[in-house]
Order: sequence, then structure tokens, then C-alpha cells
Amino acid sequence: MRDVAIVGVGLMKWGELWEKSIRDLCVEAALSCFEDAGNDKIDSIVVGTMASGLLTGQEHMANMVPDYLGKKHVPAMRVESACCSGSQAVRTAFMEVASGMSDCVLALGVEKMTDVSGNDATYALATASDQEFEAFHGVTFPGLYAMMARKHMEQYGTTREQLAEVSSKNHRNGSLNPHAQYPFPMTREQVMNSTLVADPLRLMDCSPITDGAAAVLLVPATDAKKYKKHGMVVISGVGHATDTIALCQRKDMLKMEAVTLAAKAALKMAGKTIKDVNFAEVHDCFTIAEIMIMEALGIVKPGQGGPATLKGLTALEGKFPVNPSGGLKSKGHPVGATGVAQICEAVYQLRGEAGKRQVKNAKVGLTQNMGGTGGTSVVHILEAK
Amino acid sequence: MRDVAIVGVGLMKWGELWEKSIRDLCVEAALSCFEDAGNDKIDSIVVGTMASGLLTGQEHMANMVPDYLGKKHVPAMRVESACCSGSQAVRTAFMEVASGMSDCVLALGVEKMTDVSGNDATYALATASDQEFEAFHGVTFPGLYAMMARKHMEQYGTTREQLAEVSSKNHRNGSLNPHAQYPFPMTREQVMNSTLVADPLRLMDCSPITDGAAAVLLVPATDAKKYKKHGMVVISGVGHATDTIALCQRKDMLKMEAVTLAAKAALKMAGKTIKDVNFAEVHDCFTIAEIMIMEALGIVKPGQGGPATLKGLTALEGKFPVNPSGGLKSKGHPVGATGVAQICEAVYQLRGEAGKRQVKNAKVGLTQNMGGTGGTSVVHILEAK
Repeated sequence: MRDVAIVGVGLMKWGELWEKSIRDLCVEAALSCFEDAGNDKIDSIVVGTMASGLLTGQEHMANMVPDYLGKKHVPAMRVESACCSGSQAVRTAFMEVASGMSDCVLALGVEKMTDVSGNDATYALATASDQEFEAFHGVTFPGLYAMMARKHMEQYGTTREQLAEVSSKNHRNGSLNPHAQYPFPMTREQVMNSTLVADPLRLMDCSPITDGAAAVLLVPATDAKKYKKHGMVVISGVGHATDTIALCQRKDMLKMEAVTLAAKAALKMAGKTIKDVNFAEVHDCFTIAEIMIMEALGIVKPGQGGPATLKGLTALEGKFPVNPSGGLKSKGHPVGATGVAQICEAVYQLRGEAGKRQVKNAKVGLTQNMGGTGGTSVVHILEAK
Repeated sequence: MRDVAIVGVGLMKWGELWEKSIRDLCVEAALSCFEDAGNDKIDSIVVGTMASGLLTGQEHMANMVPDYLGKKHVPAMRVESACCSGSQAVRTAFMEVASGMSDCVLALGVEKMTDVSGNDATYALATASDQEFEAFHGVTFPGLYAMMARKHMEQYGTTREQLAEVSSKNHRNGSLNPHAQYPFPMTREQVMNSTLVADPLRLMDCSPITDGAAAVLLVPATDAKKYKKHGMVVISGVGHATDTIALCQRKDMLKMEAVTLAAKAALKMAGKTIKDVNFAEVHDCFTIAEIMIMEALGIVKPGQGGPATLKGLTALEGKFPVNPSGGLKSKGHPVGATGVAQICEAVYQLRGEAGKRQVKNAKVGLTQNMGGTGGTSVVHILEAK
């Protein structure tokens, strides 16, 4: 297997981008990535998008990307695992380069979510749950995560304030991120006083609806010197695992086993343990998710995610910074783009290019992306070399 | 790059399967594949499906497959390139095995199309065209292919009878295929007298709406001897290319450049030319498509696809059998499953297990799958070893 480096990353300002179509988003992120790499040669494209069919009436989405990028005839394929689609794109591009099938692969994540009504967006997102056993009966993701939050509070004594601190901490970080959809601070009080969505989760516990895209360029590590000079970053570990799609079918709804198994596989491949990791970008679709992911990754013991967050463990200046980018909560969550953007942030951090949100001594980073209520998870380990 | 063998293939009887859900289809094809392989060990699953979100309200489709297969926690991801999704699943599984990331990868293709109304199925399929520049304005695939057919008739003198022979020949082959949705013969006269859909295409020029799934199991060639004894089949070439998604944006709507480029790449990788190939499974979504694909692959010169078909070149007993399985027309076209089923047929042929539809001296087979009006195409070369 060939070693794989990331030689370009491309982001854009995320938000409610009424004036941009899904193809505009793809092109903007890809061109930004080419500029960062100092090169626009690509052999293949992998596009992560969750629900372009439901949200924009466009399946076969990857087909339009090469043409609109001025790369007609270049292979392009879509991958999808709901909100985990972006990291599946990176994982697939990794395999394509590692296998020797291609030498320069663009992994692109995108979601255009605001061209439909709020109800239609909620419906589209709910198709990431079990349609026959969950969505059809009316439950949506805030409801599913609210059940997990309520159980976590019951079982471990997790508090409303601890949940609020996840959001508040991520907004502090996001206020330092020029690409973020909501780049402003948010106090714990503001989170706790926001509109109730699904008890105990409030509006400011929930990641937003976002239009956006992100891109990374993968090449064999031996070719990295041909690209624009940045700090060298390699993908040293890739892990992927699944769990039941339906929350009700898990033995313990507080254990995110797909996250644990994906992280274990990625760390093993990289020859690392969680103690070697300097920071993580994780999938805080809801505040409770970040707490449960901290526990699933082994950053803290089960039940300790809330107290550790409140004590500042995961703050930018803490011992284990989590979501220096601002996370899904502040940065936004265009679902197919999120996993790719996590990789972009890890690369900025490992290159020492993260500006005011730079994590000190960042040498090893972990990204954790997931779909549904944790039914799918992909973890990457990235290292500065 | 590791050599990759196919050690298991799984099909099922396709049709309007009201009594089976999308998860039933996946399980039935996968279990059939495990039985064929004599082994059910898998490290990873890649699922090709075009529009499970629009057709069944289920995105994140791949997530449910491991669980319902009794393989909880095994990685599973969906890939999509419209009607080319199945062969993208095989191509992705190939890269996963070739790279060394996984040792046993199940490539599964599926589509559940009859749980929605005909109008909704037509809408879902049309999302494989350019939504903003084609589908939104009302054109659907029969209309797009009818334009190609009309132009082909004008430019090359292709006749209605030649088109009809594609369907008739494929129905003859399909009548010998126990998995086919419509396993009965169809005369040229019956095709030419069938209901007009989009002039010059009639109902019997069009592939049907189908529920179905198909599966193949890929392993390193060096591991193939561990599986049930069949003739050894390897994937020696993989090619993939794209063209503009919109038909109107091509210089020449009669040239399927993505097909030509994908075939060129696959043949080059295999160290073969089209003259070394003994038979092909191609994407006859409409009769005109098979004729244009014959030309794009270089089986015949441009304009010769119709006359060559009428003369029997591509018949089962002809010099270059095309679609011995019955093709999409007779076998059915559950869009995400089609590309995988083409590979299954090639494996049956190369093992000498195709029964009454066996191609004589089948040593090298080609499969060609495509999305949209040829916007995406994937070609595989398979060889008996």
C-alpha cells in the first residue's frame, strides 16, 4: 500500500448561500483546493453528498463536477453514508491512491440544503435513520439524540450546563474561523435559554442547516514535494465501522460502538493510541453527540464527557482540544461536506496554519465523522511529517 | 497493486417484487453470493444504489446491510453514479482489495423501484440527467434516448428493424436466463408494433422498472483457492470516465466518449485490445444505447451497430456475443444492481456455468455499465485464469 499525503485543502465561507447552486459550491471548494496545492492536475474525483436527490433533485451529482471544473472526462463517483459521506469520500480517495489506481484524487464534500423548505430538509435528513422503523413513525434526529441525552443524564448525571458548554466552547472556537457559518461566541446561558426543540435539547444544542462544500487533494507521499510548499501531512490511519441503523436495536444506546471500532482500526493502522493524539475534530451534530464521542474514542471514561467539557479539557487551550474549527455547531453542517472539512481543519492545524485557533504542538490529529445516530463512523489519523 | 479475483457471485429472480423490501433484496443476493463462494467471511461492503432516497425514503442505505446480513459492525458504504452505481461498487471494492485495505469485500447492487408510482419512478430516474438544464424542463430518459436514436437514423440510416433486433436478440438470450424478469422471446414485429413511447422508441425498446439485487465477492487472487472450487476469474482491467451530464452540451451526441475512454483504460490495464474480448455485457437501457455502445467500444465502426446487429454479429452464436444474459431489456434493470449483475453474468460465462446461454470459448469478457445518457461509464475486463 502506498503512503498517502494531503497536498491541498479547500474551504469556502459556509452559510445560507441562496445565490449559489450545488455546482457552484463544488467548483468554489475545488478551485480553492487547487490554489492551496499550487496544482490542478487530477486523475479522479470522489464526491461525498448525502441527499442531493432529495434536496436538489439531482442524483448522479458527481457526473457534473469534472465538466464544471474544466476537467471533462475525468472519472467521478459519489459516495454516501448520510452525514458521514464526506469522510467516506476521503477514505475512498485514500484507497484509490494507496492502491495505485490513481495518482491525484480530489475528495470533495458538498450539500446544498436551503433550496427546499425546512420540512423537506427535515424529511431528507430523517432518511438517514431507519425509514421503516424510525422515520416513518415520525421521529427525527433531534428526537433521537434527545433520547440519548435524556438517558445519559439519567445514567451518568450529565447536566444541562455541561451540554451547553459543548456548544459554547465550539462557538468560541468558531468565532476564530473565517469559514464558519456562525462565527460568534455563545454563552452557556444563551444556549440554555434558547428555544426547546426536543427535551432536553434546545436550538443551540443543534447543528444548523447549511450550504457548503470542502475539498482535499490526495497524492502518493513520494509525490508531495511536487506541490506548493506547506508542512507535509499524511493520512496514517483510516478506520470505518457500522452499527445497527436503528437506535432501538442497540443493546446500549449510550455506547457508540461504530465510533469505538473505527477509531481502534485507525489508531492501529497508524501505530498510535488515543494518548498520542493532540487534538480531534468530531461530529457534534448535537451537543450530546460530542460528549458521547469523547467517551467512545476513549478520551475520557464513560460518563465523564460532560464534567470534562465543563472543566475545559476539550477547550482550545485544554489538554485535549476538540473541534478547534468550531465543530458542526458553529462552523455549520452541510452534511456531505462536513467530513471533508474536518480533514481540512486537521491539515491547517498540523501545518501550523490555523491562526488564532491554532492548537499548540499539533503533530497528530484525529477526525471522527458519523452518519445517523452513530450507525456509521469513519475515523482518520493525520500526522505532520 | 494486488491482483483481484471474484470468488462468489449472487443473483436472484428479478421482477416486481411487492413482497420484498430493499433490505430483503440485499440479503437474498448476498446470501446467494456467500453460498456460491462457500464462505461468508467479509471485511467490508460496498453498496451501489441510485435513488434509494427518492424511491424508498432511505438514504444511508448501506448502513443497514451488515446488520441484516448478520455482520454487525462490518464497514459498509454506498456509491452512486445513477445507473452506473453497480459497477462503481465493484470498482470501489476492487480498489479496496487491490490497496490491501481489506481482504474480502462484498460488492452489492440493489434497487427497489416498485414501491412508488410510475410518475415518481420516472421523476427519480430523471434526476440522473441534468436537473437544472434537462429534467426541470420536462425531458425524461426515453425522450433523451429518442433524440439520439433519431439522429442516428438520420446520420447513419439506422432502421427501426435494426433497433428492434437488439430487443429481440436480448429477449432470445434472456429466455435462457432463470434470473430474468421477462424470460420470453420477442419478435422484431412485436417490438415494432408495441406502444410508442418517444418516437422512434417503443415500449419494447425500453428496459423495464425492476426490483432486484446482485452481489459479488472480491478477494486477493492469491486467496482464491480458499473458496469453493469454480473456474478462477480475475478482474484484469478497470476503466472509468465521464462526459458532460447534459446531452445538449456534447459536441456530438452520437459519440459516447465516456464509454470509449473507460474501455480504453480498462483494456490498457488488462494488456488487451477489443479483438481479444470474446463477449460483452453492455448497458442496453434502450435499444439505441446498445448500438451506440457497440460503436463506442470499437466492436464495429460508427454507424455499423444497426446493420451488424441485424446480421447476427452480436447474437449468442455470433462472432461477438453481446448481452448473453438478456441485457437490461429482458433481464430487467434495477438500476443500482445492473452493473453488478453484468459482472455476475461475465463470471458465469468465464467459468463455463452459463448453461444454455453459454458463449463458446469464453476466456475474456467485457462489462460496460453507464449512467444518464452516457455521462458516466465504467468498464471491467474479466478473465478466466
